Order: sequence, then structure tokens, then C-alpha cells
Amino acid sequence: MQWNEQDISNCGIGRALEVVGRPWALLIVREVSRGLNRFDEIQQHLAVSAAVLSRRLDELVESRLLERVPYQEAGRRTRHGYRLTSRGTELYPILLSLKEWGDRHRADPAGPATVHRHAECGADVHIALVCEQGHRVAGLAEVELRSGPGARSVSPR
Amino acid sequence: MQWNEQDISNCGIGRALEVVGRPWALLIVREVSRGLNRFDEIQQHLAVSAAVLSRRLDELVESRLLERVPYQEAGRRTRHGYRLTSRGTELYPILLSLKEWGDRHRADPAGPATVHRHAECGADVHIALVCEQGHRVAGLAEVELRSGPGARSVSPR
Repeated sequence: MQWNEQDISNCGIGRALEVVGRPWALLIVREVSRGLNRFDEIQQHLAVSAAVLSRRLDELVESRLLERVPYQEAGRRTRHGYRLTSRGTELYPILLSLKEWGDRHRADPAGPATVHRHAECGADVHIALVCEQGHRVAGLAEVELRSGPGARSVSPR
Repeated sequence: MQWNEQDISNCGIGRALEVVGRPWALLIVREVSRGLNRFDEIQQHLAVSAAVLSRRLDELVESRLLERVPYQEAGRRTRHGYRLTSRGTELYPILLSLKEWGDRHRADPAGPATVHRHAECGADVHIALVCEQGHRVAGLAEVELRSGPGARSVSPR
């Protein structure tokens, strides 16, 4: 099936973008990935109003990327923080590939604002493309994009 | 430097999202990656108005993700198609990581709409995380996110 004959509504890229296609979604996921878990911390760091952040966090909880976890400081009432669900944690390759592209094409002269290190050995972590035969794949030029088992034809127009 | 003390304005993720953070940008890049190069082909496949597509393509050319290439059919005037620049081609790991997340969490029961194959051997291509010591990294849980050389403190408020 040619790509222009294929119904785009079940494309995995599109399906992912339906959930994370607004930039703020990935920016909030980044904040939580970097260890900011409390509403006020995230609000201050992203410099966004409480009303806006509250609505966005609700959406991310609804999309099951974040979940609320109760915490309590001495002498205060119980409040809720946020942590990534497993579904949210699995966004990490998307964040890292965005970071690498952004750092390559738009970094400050001083270099990346963040580094990602392998906790076990301390070496920098990068995105790689590999095939199931174990070959390293350099990029799009070495890849064939084909219709998959879920491909459907567009309805005749 | 703690993340909440760090100025977010030069984060690579944010810098990338400034360019590709609108879902339509990556969807048009996907169309061109799949071999649709002509305005009318892309317009029909994305089911978008000519005015909207024209404005979006202009933005992608301005962002240097796409470039215009002239083509001419027999007996017709020269027209322009679109192809990825090297900067646009380097978005491929972002597209593939979105596809993998979308397919994992939101695919149709029939399976992925698209498969990415290594042109040389035909095996499926996937995103992997590797460190510079050559270790495979399973995910975010094995990664430490730290301030990099370009990290700046937030201005006192």
C-alpha cells in the first residue's frame, strides 16, 4: 500500500502526538523526570499560573502520564505531588531524542543545559537506532518505511 | 545545581519543542519522510486546506526543516515540491520514538500502521538507549539527569 493511499488515523506518530503533541505536556513530564514533584515547585520553575498548571496536570493525570501521590509535611494537611506512571516513564526516549536534536541544532555556545548519564558507569547516554539483527542504523537514509499489519486504506473520496 | 534553580530557557528539549512542538510540524515531516513531496499529495493525505498547508510549509521551510525543490511535468509550468533538509532528516529519532510509544500504548488491535525496516537486512529498526561505554540502558530509571556545561541559574525573584 502506498503511503498516500493509507488511512493516517491509526499512525503511531499521530496517536502519540494526540497525547503529547502540545509542548507543555512534554515540558511538565520533563520537570517531573528531573525530580520536581510538587505543584508549587513546578509552577515556580515553569513560571506559569496556578490555574493553567492545575488544568494541565489534570490532563496529564487523565492521560495516565502522571499520577498523584499524597505527601504530608509536619503540621500541615496532606497534599498531592506528582510522579510519572510507567506509561509516562516510557516517554523518556522521546524526551532524549528531542534533547539531542535541540542540543545539536540550537544549543548555547556553552553547551547542553542538561546531561544524561548512565547511573551505573557515569558515561553519557544517547539515542541509537538498532535493528533486530543487531546492526547499528545511522539514520533515516538506511530505513525503509512500509505499511504495517494495522495499515488501512483511506476511504474513497 | 538543582533543577529548580536552573534556568529552563536553554534546555535542549524546550529548544527542540520551539521548532517541532506543534503536532502538525512533525506530521508534515512524517509525510515527507514517507515520500510525499508534492503540495497536492500532502494536502489530500492530511485533509487540510490549501491555505493552512501553505502557511505551515512556509514555516517549516523558514525553520530549515524542509526545502523547496523545483519539478516540472511534461507540458506544465515548473512547480515546487518539498524535501527534508539534513536538519529535518535528523528529526527521525524523534519520529521513531513517538511511533514506538504510540504503537505500544495506543495501537489498533491489528498492530502498527507502519513498520520501519533496516534497508540493508530487512529487520525492524528500533530506538535504543546506549551509553558511551557501550552499555545498553533500559530506561529513565538507569539514567541520572544532571546540569550540563550550558546550565545557568534562574535569576533571583
